[in-house]
Amino acid sequence: MLVYGKNVAKEFLKNPKNIQKVILQENFDDKEILSLLENNIFKVETLRKYEMDHLVDGLHQGIMLEIRDYQYKDLTELLESNFLVMLDHIEDPHNLGAIIRTCEAAGVSGVIIAKDRQAGVTPTVVKTSAGAIYHLPVCQVTNLNQTISTLKDHGFWIVGTALEDSTDYREIDYSGKIVLIIGNEGKGISRLVRSSCDFMAKIPMYGTTNSLNASVASGIMIYEVIRNRK
Amino acid sequence: MLVYGKNVAKEFLKNPKNIQKVILQENFDDKEILSLLENNIFKVETLRKYEMDHLVDGLHQGIMLEIRDYQYKDLTELLESNFLVMLDHIEDPHNLGAIIRTCEAAGVSGVIIAKDRQAGVTPTVVKTSAGAIYHLPVCQVTNLNQTISTLKDHGFWIVGTALEDSTDYREIDYSGKIVLIIGNEGKGISRLVRSSCDFMAKIPMYGTTNSLNASVASGIMIYEVIRNRK
Repeated sequence: MLVYGKNVAKEFLKNPKNIQKVILQENFDDKEILSLLENNIFKVETLRKYEMDHLVDGLHQGIMLEIRDYQYKDLTELLESNFLVMLDHIEDPHNLGAIIRTCEAAGVSGVIIAKDRQAGVTPTVVKTSAGAIYHLPVCQVTNLNQTISTLKDHGFWIVGTALEDSTDYREIDYSGKIVLIIGNEGKGISRLVRSSCDFMAKIPMYGTTNSLNASVASGIMIYEVIRNRK
Repeated sequence: MLVYGKNVAKEFLKNPKNIQKVILQENFDDKEILSLLENNIFKVETLRKYEMDHLVDGLHQGIMLEIRDYQYKDLTELLESNFLVMLDHIEDPHNLGAIIRTCEAAGVSGVIIAKDRQAGVTPTVVKTSAGAIYHLPVCQVTNLNQTISTLKDHGFWIVGTALEDSTDYREIDYSGKIVLIIGNEGKGISRLVRSSCDFMAKIPMYGTTNSLNASVASGIMIYEVIRNRK
């Protein structure tokens, strides 16, 4: 896939193994980036501005990178870990990217997403994750409920989040093998997934707003699990 | 300002006092929205699709709302409160909206932002805040450092966030009047603002990613202050 812009380019050039090709506008003169491009083995191509403008919709600032498509991992790689996050159909790629970034920073072992009605790993996700996606296994599964069943067989406790019929998130014991499930931005966790949860956690709210942004709620929940385990 | 799209329209129609005018595409036939439009006092105008396409860049789905511009509040209104959030030049309107949403949900008394080099209250912010902005005072100030000085005179303790020379965020006493400062997405908290902080808090990280999205970090910090005070 094609990513672009100077900041994104710098991020990828720190860890250049995912770069397949660099496209520069003729007369590109950002010294910092040009020095990062030295001594690398990938192909560098030069195009005219109007040729580059045709390739992407956004502001490319004279640099584009063709990067390797994200390789989803297999669920079996995650079964021996202790803390996973499952997303029940997160649709906004900015939320997916921010959640992946938080998971990687917090030391979560992997993220499980559904194949359908779910943001996949696009350039926006790569960018919003600030590169974290390349350091965290993301696993794509066909059926969340079957996956939950497999995870339970491997000793995981399933923690969902919801506003109703749920327990204050600070009162749950997160000390075992945990899968934290984050629901869709509008609809929350689906009925079937909810019925498989061992615990339902609620972040208390004190204003008129009755829900948080999905990536913010994920951050609060993930750090609560971490706090409880250390 | 002009906001658009069916979901945004429904959100505003729940609390119609901020709506000045509704613009519908001829033959607009969403029954749920049409029923919400009944018995309201604002003006409803009908336009053709091409006329509406000229008004905004995005996908309007046949409905636009002219809403009242946000009225920033005065700092003096916030001086007697107990928990404020100050943003040290947050540039991304999605982050600003998500932070406002979290603050309102968590019961923070108000948000202080700078006039310059800071996202202001735009339609994107209103949308990302999920309407929370209309229930939370946002105050715009010319100089963050002078404002910090005024807040200190009124008994506030100033808590910043940074990765270096900082204390684990779970080890700080947040029981007094607190101003929590969130830094810019790329640069963090500025040197001068940092020198005014009474405490610097750090959210521990365990991966290769060394920072969180600004709105995620805000959520974790805000809920930590709340936990500590209850």
